[in-house]
Amino acid sequence: MAGTRIREATGEDVPLILSLVRELAEYERLSDEVVATEEGLRENLFGGRRYAEVLIAEHNGAPAGFALFFHNFSTFLGKPGIYLEDLYVKPEFRGAGIGRKLLVRLARLARERDCGRLEWWVLDWNEPSIGFYRKLGAVPMDDWTVYRISGTALEDLASGA
Amino acid sequence: MAGTRIREATGEDVPLILSLVRELAEYERLSDEVVATEEGLRENLFGGRRYAEVLIAEHNGAPAGFALFFHNFSTFLGKPGIYLEDLYVKPEFRGAGIGRKLLVRLARLARERDCGRLEWWVLDWNEPSIGFYRKLGAVPMDDWTVYRISGTALEDLASGA
Repeated sequence: MAGTRIREATGEDVPLILSLVRELAEYERLSDEVVATEEGLRENLFGGRRYAEVLIAEHNGAPAGFALFFHNFSTFLGKPGIYLEDLYVKPEFRGAGIGRKLLVRLARLARERDCGRLEWWVLDWNEPSIGFYRKLGAVPMDDWTVYRISGTALEDLASGA
Repeated sequence: MAGTRIREATGEDVPLILSLVRELAEYERLSDEVVATEEGLRENLFGGRRYAEVLIAEHNGAPAGFALFFHNFSTFLGKPGIYLEDLYVKPEFRGAGIGRKLLVRLARLARERDCGRLEWWVLDWNEPSIGFYRKLGAVPMDDWTVYRISGTALEDLASGA
C-alpha cells in the first residue's frame, strides 16, 4: 500500500507497540525505565478495561510509528481532553510528515469527541520536537510542574504513614 | 458526624463540585478559565461515559474539599496510574489534615487498582502546596514541560491546515 496510513491498533499489535515504546525510550535516554511487558500491555490496552488507545502509522505497508493516548479531564472546561502519552516515528521514516498525520488524526478525534484540548509532555532538551510542536500552535505550560509519587513513597502514603 | 469523612461523589454533588472548582480557580488566579457548567459536569462525570472520579471530604458533616482524578497510562510501566486533576480544601478547613487524607485515599486506590504512579501538576508559585507535596515524597518532573493545543490552533490542526 503506497503512502501513509493511520489505523487503530488491535491486540495483535502488542509486540509492535512494545518494540516502538522501547525505541522511543531509547531516543529519550530513558530505557532503564521501561519495565512494560506484552502481557501488561495486552491486559491494559485490549482487555476488560482499556486505559489508552493506540494509533499505528504505516508507510508503504511497513510500521513507521505510533501514538498512544487517553482521555484526561478539565474541571475548568467541564469536559474531557486528549492526552498524548507517546508519539514516535521511526528514524528512517522521519521527514515524511508522519508525526503530523498522527497529530491531525488526534485533533480530529478531539473534535469528534468534543474535547477541549490536546496535551502532552516534552523533554526540555528535545528541541527538534519542541520546534515542530510550536509550529503547530502548541503552547508550553511554563508556570506548571508535574509532581509524581511512586514506589515506596506511594506505598508509605497508602499506609497512611 | 464528627471528624473527617471521605466519600465518593454522586450526581447530586454536581453543584457542590462546581462551586469547589470555582473556589480552586480563584485560589489559582485562573477564574477566567472556568467555563464549566453543571450540565457538562453531570454528563461527563456521572453520565454514560465517566471521564473522571470525584472524592468529597466532609468535616463534621460540612463539605470541606474535594479531589477529582482519572486514570492515565504509562507505556514505560505498561500499566495505568492515577492523575489528580484537582485537589482543594476550603480555607476554613485547612491545617486539619484533610488534603493529606484525600491523598492517602488516592494512594490506596492506586494500590488497589495496581497503578504505578500518582501524578498531578502544581503551579510554580504555589510554595505552600509544593512544600506539602515534597514532604509526602513527591518528586518534581523538572525535565519535562507540558504542551497544549486548544481553540483555533486545535481546529486548524483538525482541518489538516
